[in-house]
Amino acid sequence: MSLVLRGIFPPLTTPFAPDGSLDLKAATANVRKYNDTKLAGYVVLGSTGESVYLREEEKLKVLQAVRAAADRSKALIAGTGCEGTAETIEFTRRAADVGYQAALVRTPAYFKSQMTESALERHFRAVADSSPIPVLVYSVPQFTGVAVEASLVARLAAHPNIAGIKESSGNVERVAQMLRLAPPEFQVVVGSATTLYPSLSLGAGGGILAVACALPELCVELYQAFCQGDHARARSLQQRLLEPTVAVTSRYGIAGLKFAMELRGYAGGLPRAPLLPLDEAARAELTRIVRALDASS
Amino acid sequence: MSLVLRGIFPPLTTPFAPDGSLDLKAATANVRKYNDTKLAGYVVLGSTGESVYLREEEKLKVLQAVRAAADRSKALIAGTGCEGTAETIEFTRRAADVGYQAALVRTPAYFKSQMTESALERHFRAVADSSPIPVLVYSVPQFTGVAVEASLVARLAAHPNIAGIKESSGNVERVAQMLRLAPPEFQVVVGSATTLYPSLSLGAGGGILAVACALPELCVELYQAFCQGDHARARSLQQRLLEPTVAVTSRYGIAGLKFAMELRGYAGGLPRAPLLPLDEAARAELTRIVRALDASS
Amino acid sequence: MSLVLRGIFPPLTTPFAPDGSLDLKAATANVRKYNDTKLAGYVVLGSTGESVYLREEEKLKVLQAVRAAADRSKALIAGTGCEGTAETIEFTRRAADVGYQAALVRTPAYFKSQMTESALERHFRAVADSSPIPVLVYSVPQFTGVAVEASLVARLAAHPNIAGIKESSGNVERVAQMLRLAPPEFQVVVGSATTLYPSLSLGAGGGILAVACALPELCVELYQAFCQGDHARARSLQQRLLEPTVAVTSRYGIAGLKFAMELRGYAGGLPRAPLLPLDEAARAELTRIVRALDASS
Amino acid sequence: MSLVLRGIFPPLTTPFAPDGSLDLKAATANVRKYNDTKLAGYVVLGSTGESVYLREEEKLKVLQAVRAAADRSKALIAGTGCEGTAETIEFTRRAADVGYQAALVRTPAYFKSQMTESALERHFRAVADSSPIPVLVYSVPQFTGVAVEASLVARLAAHPNIAGIKESSGNVERVAQMLRLAPPEFQVVVGSATTLYPSLSLGAGGGILAVACALPELCVELYQAFCQGDHARARSLQQRLLEPTVAVTSRYGIAGLKFAMELRGYAGGLPRAPLLPLDEAARAELTRIVRALDASS
Repeated sequence: MSLVLRGIFPPLTTPFAPDGSLDLKAATANVRKYNDTKLAGYVVLGSTGESVYLREEEKLKVLQAVRAAADRSKALIAGTGCEGTAETIEFTRRAADVGYQAALVRTPAYFKSQMTESALERHFRAVADSSPIPVLVYSVPQFTGVAVEASLVARLAAHPNIAGIKESSGNVERVAQMLRLAPPEFQVVVGSATTLYPSLSLGAGGGILAVACALPELCVELYQAFCQGDHARARSLQQRLLEPTVAVTSRYGIAGLKFAMELRGYAGGLPRAPLLPLDEAARAELTRIVRALDASS
Repeated sequence: MSLVLRGIFPPLTTPFAPDGSLDLKAATANVRKYNDTKLAGYVVLGSTGESVYLREEEKLKVLQAVRAAADRSKALIAGTGCEGTAETIEFTRRAADVGYQAALVRTPAYFKSQMTESALERHFRAVADSSPIPVLVYSVPQFTGVAVEASLVARLAAHPNIAGIKESSGNVERVAQMLRLAPPEFQVVVGSATTLYPSLSLGAGGGILAVACALPELCVELYQAFCQGDHARARSLQQRLLEPTVAVTSRYGIAGLKFAMELRGYAGGLPRAPLLPLDEAARAELTRIVRALDASS
Repeated sequence: MSLVLRGIFPPLTTPFAPDGSLDLKAATANVRKYNDTKLAGYVVLGSTGESVYLREEEKLKVLQAVRAAADRSKALIAGTGCEGTAETIEFTRRAADVGYQAALVRTPAYFKSQMTESALERHFRAVADSSPIPVLVYSVPQFTGVAVEASLVARLAAHPNIAGIKESSGNVERVAQMLRLAPPEFQVVVGSATTLYPSLSLGAGGGILAVACALPELCVELYQAFCQGDHARARSLQQRLLEPTVAVTSRYGIAGLKFAMELRGYAGGLPRAPLLPLDEAARAELTRIVRALDASS
Repeated sequence: MSLVLRGIFPPLTTPFAPDGSLDLKAATANVRKYNDTKLAGYVVLGSTGESVYLREEEKLKVLQAVRAAADRSKALIAGTGCEGTAETIEFTRRAADVGYQAALVRTPAYFKSQMTESALERHFRAVADSSPIPVLVYSVPQFTGVAVEASLVARLAAHPNIAGIKESSGNVERVAQMLRLAPPEFQVVVGSATTLYPSLSLGAGGGILAVACALPELCVELYQAFCQGDHARARSLQQRLLEPTVAVTSRYGIAGLKFAMELRGYAGGLPRAPLLPLDEAARAELTRIVRALDASS
């Protein structure tokens, strides 16, 4: 099958009920709202989905709920990476069984000094060999402490079932090197909304952006402005995205993103512990930032 | 109950059969051999136990097998930390049910910028509140990218069910600060064999040392020399430990440790993927290092 | 006076004779060649000029030689930053006396933990207060270990004699934040040729680029393509710049840059110790890279 | 000549008059006071001496003033490292001419990615080849971003005029590796007072300690307790040193150290800009820390 990663994909948050259990109704409601946007598809069980806090049975329920609610026009990508190669292979098969079109596989990360290019290459090749669906490499060193460099991407791109990479480091030079070294059909999407426009300018195909869970239209607008060759508008929209992006990622994390989603009419709720709920000052700041966006649009 | 962490504890490796499945017989055989040493106890499902590559049912089987094989005189500590607070609480209870005397709980680590002192404090307190057995904080920044500082240790030490810390950063100043700021009954053990003697000199109670899986006698000898006030001998043994320790930890990791165990008559085997097997040169170097130790002892 | 930083500026290398003494004739010859290009001006005594290896009297000679050789149409910027504030002030005055139009002042860096935003702000303000010529802040954390963040830039931009910043970290998000927070007349130029095009896309005015010492035309071409709105060409030229830029900066440093200059008909020579001369393999690789560029242009 | 580095050496601060000029009288007065202690000698123009803020003529004046005031029994070591090899060689000769017995040469640091082991080895060998006095390597990565590893130390120790190293990283494993790999006559002294006792335990010969400028007796007491085999006392003194050391180094830097010196009856004064003066809160905290020490001694 062919997978084309063009446009904006939100890595969906996972809503929880006040008792901490999955709130699949809320998950479904969010997807139905996103169906009305021009988002290109959904990434389920990514970092932003708090997949590290979900049990396997919970993960499958989330995959199924989003699958059932998603419009047919939206591409469906499942985060399937685990620390172990065997566990990753097994869960990737399950995601394919549920009907996902691609698997986003993050780098194993625990034994960092052993996660050499050779070890990572063998891991991704083993997963891709066994996966019924195309594999996307996921590099997110701010969470894992392990970065995939362009030289490894060039080697992985030779595998027929490794279709692309989600590059979330925010390092634009690294994105440029990947685009230079990988063949043109290899798809580079970025995970950093603060560098979306410059990455698109260099040839990236789109973005899997946490901030798009709260501000899908703004992200799509930037992407469309770029596609239409309207660089002045793309630049200006990029500037508008900077402050909210930082607020819902590095500064306040998923608690911040979920609160911003509530401000925009989506189901948010609290993250699971050990993530902390926001304090009053953080809520006030996020409210100011989101309101300012509304006022200026 | 009271737990006294004095002496040397190996964080047991998990043996796998050639097909990658658990080899509980081998695990049992290793423990029986260790029973004849002066090791103070066993840590099961630590980093060295490849717990990040084990499924929950496998973890329980390993806990039970070691429990059954361990001599009554040996303290039993279970690694129970998961990314999520709820999951950690649940698994800690299971380990207590199996008969473990303390739970070693590593820092959650995925969302690093959110793992503030407040978030970590709340996590450890929540686990300790619910745990039937004493909790040991586990700080291992080389794997997690998150370090527990002495200021947090001082706050956690006030909790009646937080009994100590395994400090694996190798930062001796940090160990000294923990010993200064925590009350005397709070137990500081180190996870770095390269700084065992200096840490004991400062007041640490012992070590949970990967290299002790292969070289238990040498580690115990160093500990005993220190206890007897024989600093010259402790220093000399520390020097002898340096090269093998680096080889079986940062340089070759668990694959190296398991091979060194084989050289010493223990069941080793291969680690699970994505960890790579050793190449020929690494095996030759480890063989040389272990043989040199034998010759000099 | 007004200084407009638009376009490409090479940070000139300092040629040395085989005995290690200054070769001012070679410096002059290089400038005369650059005069025939569309470079916007010259930065003298930047990092690439090995200013850290020059005595003060040597620095003045280099400033004078370049001043004498430079075409009147080229802007002249002098690197004047020293570790101490007083020494920086004094040398900045001398550079102004020689006729330089702006002073590029790098962050002091030795006592890193003390180089807080307050300390840096006071330093740059003190220099700007005393300087007869506009000051450009110079942030180059790969050399200094100290990064100027956008929040500090916003404060410094309020000073009437601080005209801009040379941002050399290569962090494109940081560039974007500076452009967002500083007033439009504040000039942001980048020091990283691997991210020149994305930085221009975001609003940077130009680049002070080591690789421009060897490949001035290619850098100018990229800049002009961008100014003409030819994004496809700018992107393609950016891709061509990646490999040579990495080779003459992070990989082989100034020795590599000087050798690449020789390949392009400029005076190169060896850097001063402790920088090492290139070995044969490095020279062969650089020759291949530069020849490949020639072939494709 | 032979140089024996045993005991405690303060890296002398450089007193400045209120107008920022050198205050050689104050420098002399401090040395006369130190002459009455059991300090083993003095390091002049080290990091703590703010040598990066001194002009060459000022450096020579400081060297001469301390030379004239120092008791004959005290070893005299001059910090002579500059970024360039040639400049370092020249200034090392001058320090020897003034009568200094050894030269402390820090790693060049500006072009970090080029400061490979080969480049550093060639630098130190070139300086040692030309130096009339023994050379001590100085590794202080918290200031330079460049660390000397044990493997390089082993190679440098083979040079007949490289007598030892001041290891200031605070990494005790690294100290242990240096002691393991270098021959016994090679002298390892540490620059980190927070790890003085553990470093002595491993075989280090002494310490060059900023905190010894303010608290020479306490540092000497710890050293003597260790030499007498009184480990309990050494450990207890090490604990007492922790808080004041952190306060006058990483937390408040040289401004803090100079203020602590004033509290103890030495000439302190302000550091040169860009170092900031202490604010009121910092002075209060330092006063509390120093008074607490007095009370407990």
